[in-house]
Amino acid sequence: MTTPLRMRADDLSIDRDRLLGRITALGAIGRDEAGRLVRLAGTDADKAGRDQVVSWFNEAGLDVMVDQLGNLFGVWRAGDPAARPVLIGSHIDTVIDAGVYDGAYGVLTGLSAIEALQASGFAPARPLAVAAFTNEEGVRFAPDMMGSLVHAGGLGVDAALASKDANGVTLGAELVRIGYAGPHAPGFLMPHVYLEVHIEQGPVLESECVAIGAVEGVQGISWRRITFRGEANHAGTTPMTLRRDAGTAAVRIAAFVAERARASSGRALATVGCLAFEPGAINVIPANACLTVDLRSPDKDELARQEAALDAMLGQVAREERVEFAVETLARFEPVRFDPEIVALVEKAALARGLNARRMVSGAGHDAQMMARIAPTAMIFVPSAGGISHNPSEHTKEDDLIAGARILLDVVAHLAS
Amino acid sequence: MTTPLRMRADDLSIDRDRLLGRITALGAIGRDEAGRLVRLAGTDADKAGRDQVVSWFNEAGLDVMVDQLGNLFGVWRAGDPAARPVLIGSHIDTVIDAGVYDGAYGVLTGLSAIEALQASGFAPARPLAVAAFTNEEGVRFAPDMMGSLVHAGGLGVDAALASKDANGVTLGAELVRIGYAGPHAPGFLMPHVYLEVHIEQGPVLESECVAIGAVEGVQGISWRRITFRGEANHAGTTPMTLRRDAGTAAVRIAAFVAERARASSGRALATVGCLAFEPGAINVIPANACLTVDLRSPDKDELARQEAALDAMLGQVAREERVEFAVETLARFEPVRFDPEIVALVEKAALARGLNARRMVSGAGHDAQMMARIAPTAMIFVPSAGGISHNPSEHTKEDDLIAGARILLDVVAHLAS
Repeated sequence: MTTPLRMRADDLSIDRDRLLGRITALGAIGRDEAGRLVRLAGTDADKAGRDQVVSWFNEAGLDVMVDQLGNLFGVWRAGDPAARPVLIGSHIDTVIDAGVYDGAYGVLTGLSAIEALQASGFAPARPLAVAAFTNEEGVRFAPDMMGSLVHAGGLGVDAALASKDANGVTLGAELVRIGYAGPHAPGFLMPHVYLEVHIEQGPVLESECVAIGAVEGVQGISWRRITFRGEANHAGTTPMTLRRDAGTAAVRIAAFVAERARASSGRALATVGCLAFEPGAINVIPANACLTVDLRSPDKDELARQEAALDAMLGQVAREERVEFAVETLARFEPVRFDPEIVALVEKAALARGLNARRMVSGAGHDAQMMARIAPTAMIFVPSAGGISHNPSEHTKEDDLIAGARILLDVVAHLAS
Repeated sequence: MTTPLRMRADDLSIDRDRLLGRITALGAIGRDEAGRLVRLAGTDADKAGRDQVVSWFNEAGLDVMVDQLGNLFGVWRAGDPAARPVLIGSHIDTVIDAGVYDGAYGVLTGLSAIEALQASGFAPARPLAVAAFTNEEGVRFAPDMMGSLVHAGGLGVDAALASKDANGVTLGAELVRIGYAGPHAPGFLMPHVYLEVHIEQGPVLESECVAIGAVEGVQGISWRRITFRGEANHAGTTPMTLRRDAGTAAVRIAAFVAERARASSGRALATVGCLAFEPGAINVIPANACLTVDLRSPDKDELARQEAALDAMLGQVAREERVEFAVETLARFEPVRFDPEIVALVEKAALARGLNARRMVSGAGHDAQMMARIAPTAMIFVPSAGGISHNPSEHTKEDDLIAGARILLDVVAHLAS
């Protein structure tokens, strides 16, 4: 079915300078001594970023609400007070040495869209709200996408608050310390629909000269940590046949997962981002080796096939190398499909604005994939220069940023009517 | 040709309790707070070990001489004062968390052999000397086998003294500090022959129930550090075909060198002891990867073939993975062949003592391989329990330790006659 497009009045427009100025201003908050943007969840930098966002929510006349996990909401009380709000969200926590767009762009664009509707005299049928979810990046506290996961009921708030950083400090203690342990139970604000605008963090839109990505869903993801235990021995005196080389086992697995992904349908991805040997001496056969495997696919069955192939190869390599192994599942999410009607709306809105668009699947995880559990959801992507993200050279052209905001605005106006 | 065996008088005997007691006593010197044996070159622990050895040299009436690199000699002035001495040596520096036998056994056995000859009333035709070479292990200062390398003229003394540890401290400064920067120019004591007794540090003698290894030579060794430079990117958004994954390049090389060594004649060894990725995050494609490759073979041509195969595969993998690479040669020694007559003497001496012996090639590097450049040289190996070395569980049975000392004694008596 198709939904008629009831928006794109000419009097709906994003305040370009304000949005771009806020992205720059928020990006200046949380710089370390070396000038790196490091706004990890629960830190003083996070508090400073939140304080700035709250100040902007207040300027826009939004009700500021914080839940027990620090998820931050700005609510425009409009239309039917009993109706569920149109919720626009993302996050403002960052990785270490981050760019300024990842997350922040989505939150600030949500605010800009609400302000644009307010300025136009638009009378929504239901409330609108913008959310900044806690700890999307998961750099300091596990798991990532934590705030939206808890909001959607996928993780208990107590367990989330008890998550510890590398120094044993809990997220709960840090939220109290920075003044963002709010009174509301997570999930208190149940959305009518959820929307999220984000930079692509990949090369597709830029390389195809497409302005708008109508995101149909998010890849499934499987994160594992694999540990091999062999025996340390002298590199010069231990015959190859008598070795129990944990390192060789690990590199064979790492080479296999890359080869397997390349031989797949072309949509599966496999990455070994961490690999470490112990004791780590040039002339000592590694006793222990640890690697991480990040498998992704938009296809549920393909993801499961990748995992099964890995499992089979683990058994084979461990036998051949005469080593023991252990596997921990660090994260496992099935592929997520967004709401087809909203995805179609995004395409239509782009067309109506004269922008080209393409359907795509998100390679990265986003709060939207959690929110899709509890509400019709979609995402809007804008190009990332060079596909680079999680890096200070992360960049999206100003016109692309504004284009994404306009499409969000049009879709929100439609869904709130 | 064969040399008749002119030794093994029944009145030549090693003082068992004194040798075993000294191994234990020296092994107690240089323990850290955790009880680990850590007697790195140029440290206070090294000084304490040297002081103990000097004290024992003095007890035996040996002339104690130290060269500019801290190589320590105890000389028994006997026989023709103009003749070159029979030199027995090894080292007393250790790795971190070492066993008590590696190196120390050779030095103390050399001393015991000289004492046994003295006690028997043996009148040598030439001087005898025992040496403890500086920094054989190379843990703190590069290169390893430094003292014997400099003694043999393979490295200048100034370059060796300028070698810096991880904190920028030079070996020269440390030798002055601990009082072992001696007056003699390295190489001042030119040996007639050089002998070294050592634990095997490998599993062969124990697994074949052989008491004595008559060491014919030392494997050639090639140490390289290979660095790959690719591009960090998001694991979820970067298609496999667009990646420049330094990690995949590194694991393919590491898997290749193990496979290549296994497919070789059976005598080539390949070890990747160090492998590290940067930035080292589960969801980030590695931008940089660094690995070490330790290649060994007793066959010069086989070692060169291994290196050439590695070079070819490096080029191929770098092209396929679209990464750059750099190779540093950290060490390169051709295989060493010891003196066939002395090797034959070792076999004969074992036979005469009723001990079984086998010819073998040392997998590990030893001072003897440097001394072989300037004098007829051989080594005597005794079994290592489990082949374990560079580890506190390094162990050789007392009877095996004494057996090795007796063979040394008999060979030395012959060569000094």
